[in-house]
Amino acid sequence: MKLRIHVTLKPGVLDPQGKAIEHALAGLGFAGVNGARVGKLIELDVAEGTADADIDAMCRQLLANTVIENYRVEKA
Amino acid sequence: MKLRIHVTLKPGVLDPQGKAIEHALAGLGFAGVNGARVGKLIELDVAEGTADADIDAMCRQLLANTVIENYRVEKA
Repeated sequence: MKLRIHVTLKPGVLDPQGKAIEHALAGLGFAGVNGARVGKLIELDVAEGTADADIDAMCRQLLANTVIENYRVEKA
Repeated sequence: MKLRIHVTLKPGVLDPQGKAIEHALAGLGFAGVNGARVGKLIELDVAEGTADADIDAMCRQLLANTVIENYRVEKA
């Protein structure tokens, strides 16, 4: 079973990498970029029938830092 | 207009970060994880009516390294 896990910074958490992208796009001449935030996209291939609770535990224990990051699991 | 850009490594490109996740999950006792790949998720807030060609140019020039990465743009 393929999972796609989106890990994004919580609103309010500073994102220097996003800021760098925003400035770099402006520097390249792309006007109208008002914000950029960078997160992680983790594609996992887990055994068929893996429980949602296990997937959640993987995210909490390893994949996302829930103090500053949100995560969303998408089954593909 | 909010864009979500998924940047993923092309198949065949080695992904040490993904391998590390795979081994770490096994070490934590999660069995059945057969693969992990890590990509980037970039959320951009661009001006309404930004042309698709411009978005594509942003990805090619800055956001993705098209030699080793694929990208997919999703309008949210």
